[in-house]
Amino acid sequence: MKIIVIGASGTLGQAVAENLSARHDVVRVGKSRGDHRVDLTRPESVQALFDATGRVDAIVATTGSLFFGPLAQMRAEDFEIGLQDKLLGQVRLALVGQHFLNDGGSITLTSGIVGSEPIRMGANAGSVNAALEGFVRSAAPELERGLRINVVSPTVVQESWPAYGDFFPGFEPVPAARVALAFQRSVEGPRSGHVYRVW
Amino acid sequence: MKIIVIGASGTLGQAVAENLSARHDVVRVGKSRGDHRVDLTRPESVQALFDATGRVDAIVATTGSLFFGPLAQMRAEDFEIGLQDKLLGQVRLALVGQHFLNDGGSITLTSGIVGSEPIRMGANAGSVNAALEGFVRSAAPELERGLRINVVSPTVVQESWPAYGDFFPGFEPVPAARVALAFQRSVEGPRSGHVYRVW
Repeated sequence: MKIIVIGASGTLGQAVAENLSARHDVVRVGKSRGDHRVDLTRPESVQALFDATGRVDAIVATTGSLFFGPLAQMRAEDFEIGLQDKLLGQVRLALVGQHFLNDGGSITLTSGIVGSEPIRMGANAGSVNAALEGFVRSAAPELERGLRINVVSPTVVQESWPAYGDFFPGFEPVPAARVALAFQRSVEGPRSGHVYRVW
Repeated sequence: MKIIVIGASGTLGQAVAENLSARHDVVRVGKSRGDHRVDLTRPESVQALFDATGRVDAIVATTGSLFFGPLAQMRAEDFEIGLQDKLLGQVRLALVGQHFLNDGGSITLTSGIVGSEPIRMGANAGSVNAALEGFVRSAAPELERGLRINVVSPTVVQESWPAYGDFFPGFEPVPAARVALAFQRSVEGPRSGHVYRVW
């Protein structure tokens, strides 16, 4: 399969690209590094990416920014950060990408444990991750030509624990390579509209 | 209690205002009708509403627009309609409103059954409704001064069935007055971070 991995230079994206490249032709895409560049918040950038890659068999996104901060100080414009970046960025990728997938191809997005298990300062993350799961659930039955869409909800990855662990008291980190297995299941398996929880 | 109901001239909002006004001082707010006007997509409008009402004991929103259309033709700018209106409009109301609630006050938002049960052309609704539930789940434990936040997820109301029933094959409509009971439970009950499903 020819697979685009967006966010391929990130901690999780590297592990996903490494897993998939053992069996597939992986195109690594990032904001500032990789075989191609893309900014998912810019429509013309997403279109340019697919114009450059041509048709593919799978699209994987492991990317997206969120806002973290106390609810009492949170403003709507802070909340917009996650809406425009992690949520609408990945939704835009899916909406445009559906037209560049070969029959039977798949889209795999990334949400996160905070969509189900709240953390302090995580109202934006909780909402955006849930929104991505709602999108995938709703979009899956409408996809044509045997296309599939899923989302992986990882907990904090072990490699990021030194930086983020303090925000996740009592959470259990998992190695990025283990999260990558869920992406492999989504890309190579039969399911659609599914949330792969890795926690 | 002094309660603001936003969307009070809508089918559901009327039923909620009628239920609550039997026991409380209800301020009816709408986009173009009511005791006050508000456009939840405009920050200055939300601020002006609370400047006009002063402190309240409960804030209820039964309002918000979504985009409906086939996934194959959906564009990111279509998807933005629900993000900016139903999602960020209600989130903005909650973020600003928390500072205008008396101790122990509550916020009740509205999602919808499509967040859990997909319908054709409903990818935007599925995502936005799930996002509102994720927001409430995450925001609830961070609220201060005994404040609470919940969301009501109604199915299609009986009164709207002639207009929307064709989009909901096999769904069971319920009278708006029955959905209003869930809003009463949220406002007058003890729970926080809860999704009241009326279906």
